[in-house]
Amino acid sequence: MARKTVLALTVFLSLISASCAQTRPDPLPSWNEGPSKRAVLDFISRTTTRGGKDFVPEDERIATFDNDGTLWVEQPMYTQMAFALDRVKQLAPSHPEWKDQQPFQAALAGDMKAVAASGEHGLMELIMATHAGMTTDEFERTITNWLATAQHPRFKRPYTECVYQPMLELLALLRASGFKNYIVSGGGVESMRPWAERVYGIPPEQVIGSTIKTKFEMQNGTPVLVRLPQLDFVDDKEGKPVAIERVIGRRPIAAFGNSDGDLQMLQWTAAGPGARLMLIVHHTDADREYAYDRQSSFGRLDKAMDEAAAKHWVLVSMKDDWKTIFAFEK
Amino acid sequence: MARKTVLALTVFLSLISASCAQTRPDPLPSWNEGPSKRAVLDFISRTTTRGGKDFVPEDERIATFDNDGTLWVEQPMYTQMAFALDRVKQLAPSHPEWKDQQPFQAALAGDMKAVAASGEHGLMELIMATHAGMTTDEFERTITNWLATAQHPRFKRPYTECVYQPMLELLALLRASGFKNYIVSGGGVESMRPWAERVYGIPPEQVIGSTIKTKFEMQNGTPVLVRLPQLDFVDDKEGKPVAIERVIGRRPIAAFGNSDGDLQMLQWTAAGPGARLMLIVHHTDADREYAYDRQSSFGRLDKAMDEAAAKHWVLVSMKDDWKTIFAFEK
Repeated sequence: MARKTVLALTVFLSLISASCAQTRPDPLPSWNEGPSKRAVLDFISRTTTRGGKDFVPEDERIATFDNDGTLWVEQPMYTQMAFALDRVKQLAPSHPEWKDQQPFQAALAGDMKAVAASGEHGLMELIMATHAGMTTDEFERTITNWLATAQHPRFKRPYTECVYQPMLELLALLRASGFKNYIVSGGGVESMRPWAERVYGIPPEQVIGSTIKTKFEMQNGTPVLVRLPQLDFVDDKEGKPVAIERVIGRRPIAAFGNSDGDLQMLQWTAAGPGARLMLIVHHTDADREYAYDRQSSFGRLDKAMDEAAAKHWVLVSMKDDWKTIFAFEK
Repeated sequence: MARKTVLALTVFLSLISASCAQTRPDPLPSWNEGPSKRAVLDFISRTTTRGGKDFVPEDERIATFDNDGTLWVEQPMYTQMAFALDRVKQLAPSHPEWKDQQPFQAALAGDMKAVAASGEHGLMELIMATHAGMTTDEFERTITNWLATAQHPRFKRPYTECVYQPMLELLALLRASGFKNYIVSGGGVESMRPWAERVYGIPPEQVIGSTIKTKFEMQNGTPVLVRLPQLDFVDDKEGKPVAIERVIGRRPIAAFGNSDGDLQMLQWTAAGPGARLMLIVHHTDADREYAYDRQSSFGRLDKAMDEAAAKHWVLVSMKDDWKTIFAFEK
C-alpha cells in the first residue's frame, strides 16, 4: 500500500513535471517548508553536485536509518514485542507449562505490567521462546504470515502501513540521489528483512539489526540454518557503530534516529570529514501519532536531544515539520 | 597492476569487437576451452536470459567467493599470517618480553616449525598481538602500508598481484552480468577491505570475513572503534553460511571455493531452487603456482572434492583450465 502510494505519487509528480517543465516537483511533499526540510535538501544538493566542495562520490553515499520510531511507529510497544506476545498465544497449546510460568503466564493474560516486571531476563525469555528453535526459512514465513493479519492497536492498520510518509519520501529521494540506504536497528534483522524491500525499498543486504546465534546443520540431507536461543549481538547504542563498521565497512555520511539508542550512530557519522547530515525525529504529535521524549520508558530521547542542540543536528518536530505522517491519512 | 591489465584487456577487447562486429569477444580469455569454461558461460547465459526458464532477477544474482586459494595465492602461508610475522618484528622493540616467549620467539627467529608447534592457541596469540589494540582507522593504515612493500616469497611481487587472472575475468563478467560479488573468507574482514575494491572491484560492504570484537569509545572527544584481542566470529566451514545469512540475508546462486573450508558454503548455495553454479578451484599446477589437495596442511581439498564429483560441481584444474594464472606472466 505504502509502495503503491509512492508509485502513484511519482507518476503524479512526473505528470506535473511534464506539463510545466519550468517548475521542478517537490521531492518531499509531505514535509512543511522550514529549516528541517531546507537542511535535508541542502545536504543532498551539496553532496551530489559534481565539482562542488562537498561533493561525495556515489559509492561513499551511505545513509543509515534506525527503524522503530524513525521509519515506523514504536508505540505503544515495539512491533517485534507485539509479534512475540501473539506468538506466545499461538504456541501455548504445545507449552502447557507456560500457564504457571512467568513471563509467559502474564503474556497469555495480556498483563503488560507483569510482563514488564519480569525485567530484561523475562523479555529475553519471551524473545527466545518465539524467535528461536526453527530454521531461518521457517522464521521468515512466520513473520510474513503474522504481518499479513496483525494490526496496530490504535491505527487498526497493518504495521507495515504505520510507516512515516515523509521518511518514505526521504528514502526515495536519497536513493534517486545515488545514496545507499541502510536500516541499522535494535530490532532483529530477520524480523525486518521479509518486508523492508517492499515497504522501504531497502533490500535484505542493507538491513542491519540484532541477531541471535544460528547453526548450520544437515536435516535429512538438506542444509539448514537453525535459530538458537542465544543472543549473538545487540545492535543498539554503542553496538550501532560496531555493526556499521563490521557489515558496511564505511562510515555513513548521513544518519537518522529518534532516541538515545541512536546517539552513538549519530556521533560516529558526525565525526567523519566533509558534509554530514545528522537528523533526529522528535515525537511531538500526540494527536496524529504520539508525543514522548526525555522520560519515555522506551524510545527515550534525552542525551541525544541535548547533543542535537549543542551540535546543531537537525531536530525534526513531527507536529510542525510533517504535513502528513501516514499515507493512510490522505 | 592487475586492474590496469583488466582495463587494457577491456580496451583491447572493445577494439576487436568494434572491428569485427560479427564476432563477440571472449569474456574469459585466460580460460582454456573445455567443460569448466562452458559450464560457467552457460550458467551466466541461462540466469540472465529474460524469459528463459532459469532467469534470475538482477537483485537475486548473488555470487560468493572464498579469497585465499580461490582469488589469490595461499601458499606457502596465508598472506595474513605473513603480515602477522612481519608485524611481530616491527613491534618487537616495544615488547622485549617476546624474546623469551613462544610463539613470539619463534616468529622473530623465522622458525615456522616452532610457530606451527604452538598450535591454534599460539597462532591466536600472534594474531591478537598484531591485529588488536588499535583503532579500526589505524589498522587500515597498517595493512595498506604493509601491502605497499611486502612481497610474495616465491613470486617476488606484491601480494595484490598474486591474484588469479581467470578469476578477475570471471568477477568482471559476473559484475557486467548484473551479479553482486561477495568475498566470504576465513581471513579478517578488515585485512581485506583496504584493497579488495582496487584489486577485485569488490567494495567494502561486499567483503565478509572473520572478525575480532571492537568497542566504541570516546578518545579526547572523538568517537573511535578500538579493536579488542577477542575473537568475535570465525568465517570458515559452517560459519560461512551463517555469515552469508547474517550479512546478506539472501542465498547465493553461485559460490566459488578451493577447500573443505568452503564445503558448507557450496552446499548452502546448491540447496536453493533454480539454476546454481558451484565451482572449486583445484590447485594442480606446481610449475606455475602450487599443487596440493587432500593431504595439505591448509587449503585441504578432500571432502569437498568427493562432493564435487558426486554432485557434478565444476572442478577447475588450474593446470588444464587456465591459460594464464597471473597477469604478470604475460
